[in-house]
Amino acid sequence: MQIAVVGAGAIGLYFGARLQQGGEDVHFLLRRDYDAVTKNGLIIESCKGNFSLGQVQGYRSPQEIGPVDLVLIGLKAFANDRYQPLIEPLIGPKTLLLTLQNGLGNEDRLATLFGAEKIVGGIAFICSYRGESGTVHHTGGGHIQIAEYTRRGITPRLTELEAMFERCQIPCKAQADIHRMRWEKLVWNIPFNGLCALTGKTTDALLTHPPSRALIIGMMQEVVNAGNAQGLMEPISDSFVDQMINVTEPMGAYKPSMMIDRLEGRPLELAAIYGEPLHRAAEAGVAMPRTAMLQTLLDLDEEH
Amino acid sequence: MQIAVVGAGAIGLYFGARLQQGGEDVHFLLRRDYDAVTKNGLIIESCKGNFSLGQVQGYRSPQEIGPVDLVLIGLKAFANDRYQPLIEPLIGPKTLLLTLQNGLGNEDRLATLFGAEKIVGGIAFICSYRGESGTVHHTGGGHIQIAEYTRRGITPRLTELEAMFERCQIPCKAQADIHRMRWEKLVWNIPFNGLCALTGKTTDALLTHPPSRALIIGMMQEVVNAGNAQGLMEPISDSFVDQMINVTEPMGAYKPSMMIDRLEGRPLELAAIYGEPLHRAAEAGVAMPRTAMLQTLLDLDEEH
Repeated sequence: MQIAVVGAGAIGLYFGARLQQGGEDVHFLLRRDYDAVTKNGLIIESCKGNFSLGQVQGYRSPQEIGPVDLVLIGLKAFANDRYQPLIEPLIGPKTLLLTLQNGLGNEDRLATLFGAEKIVGGIAFICSYRGESGTVHHTGGGHIQIAEYTRRGITPRLTELEAMFERCQIPCKAQADIHRMRWEKLVWNIPFNGLCALTGKTTDALLTHPPSRALIIGMMQEVVNAGNAQGLMEPISDSFVDQMINVTEPMGAYKPSMMIDRLEGRPLELAAIYGEPLHRAAEAGVAMPRTAMLQTLLDLDEEH
Repeated sequence: MQIAVVGAGAIGLYFGARLQQGGEDVHFLLRRDYDAVTKNGLIIESCKGNFSLGQVQGYRSPQEIGPVDLVLIGLKAFANDRYQPLIEPLIGPKTLLLTLQNGLGNEDRLATLFGAEKIVGGIAFICSYRGESGTVHHTGGGHIQIAEYTRRGITPRLTELEAMFERCQIPCKAQADIHRMRWEKLVWNIPFNGLCALTGKTTDALLTHPPSRALIIGMMQEVVNAGNAQGLMEPISDSFVDQMINVTEPMGAYKPSMMIDRLEGRPLELAAIYGEPLHRAAEAGVAMPRTAMLQTLLDLDEEH
């Protein structure tokens, strides 16, 4: 399959590298890492075994790539105003767009620009970060979930994508309900991304401190309640909160992406991870007081 | 009246100086400012007109002062474990103890140590901070409210105290309900003290930013609701929130005491301003999710 990776941060580079390693024809749209990657290839320092790709197809513009079968989108959500120029040149009559971005609203924007039937939503469960140019560190997880934007169940093309990812050592689960999938991910992202970014503390420090552990659990319950007011095909169960705590414990001193964005002086994905979920919760009449407060404190901090 | 000032920070020094200026016999228990004050006296740079006191009675220990008629307590609430050694030597058979400290629980602790009938609660509405040793800056407000700890109405001795303060240019209002008085003050303290300390932003910056202004108003409503579940003689009205916003606007770039504590590396008055109010709200079945979250974030920050 011809695949273009747009937004080659840790997630785009990692999954793109796995796909190439599995034999797919992957084209990376690069900025920061262009020189290093086109010259020396990609190094993945992975908890599942290090590997490197000596030859990587890197590009500076999407026009050089042209139409592909699948566009894998790993942009930061605050860069979504660049969807059109970055993605349009990659689209042919049968192109699928798979976004692995965080938060809500990404697929809606892609659908408005390129048509709903092209869009597949994805969620990445991975602990990873970029090192030196051309190097990605993969410290945990690495599986994804995918779902049709149009909510028409698990389609054959979704099953094909799932099979391709599995073949490329990316454990993948096709999901029927994109809303449930996204809200489940928010149960983790909403407390941990923002609290770690705001306090400068890693996930383990927040879980060790009993009041902040209770705060995290309280925020997770807000997200479950708000998600379950969105007309999900099946509700998120209360025990999902415990599951999320349990998967976080072994991550150790993990820095969520928003904390890294903050430490590296990038803008934060506030609209996708907080603004849009709060908006949809309010429309459904569900209060998220702690989530709203966290958004406010992060937003204040962004102002300087 | 023989008066001892214990806890001679900005508030203790300011009100003590006013009392001495008005002719009362004031004895200051000093630490940091002892040398400067006993040598050169006190300088009050006041928005109501500067004044200075050349001769000030300063002491290093309460034993040197001995029993007085009134003990004015301006300690930081986190120093309340020093009540006994600092105050006991000042108590005679008719001594009144008036605490001008922030938060809840101070009078309870004084009552346990020294007897409920001796205790008068007070609230200071003042913008002030210490400058160089021996200098206090007074930038706004300057009035107080006082109430009997035992809630037996406005007693003759309360009226006498009120008259003394008024005579000494300290506008004073005796109140029947100490609980209402304290919870009203918390309506201001709970949002502003903590949010300014946490974010490092002054009151005007928080009021200018629409989301944090909304957060402040939301937190004030939490405090009004929790206060009104405490069996107040008369409820705090909803319009009190607007009043508190209105009195804060003209303060400009004000730094609340907890923000100054944070900037100067002192502990924060978390138990008195957050812990005890949250405890009493929970006992009354009232949720304060934003207040609890602010306490948690401040507490995390304290840990380092």
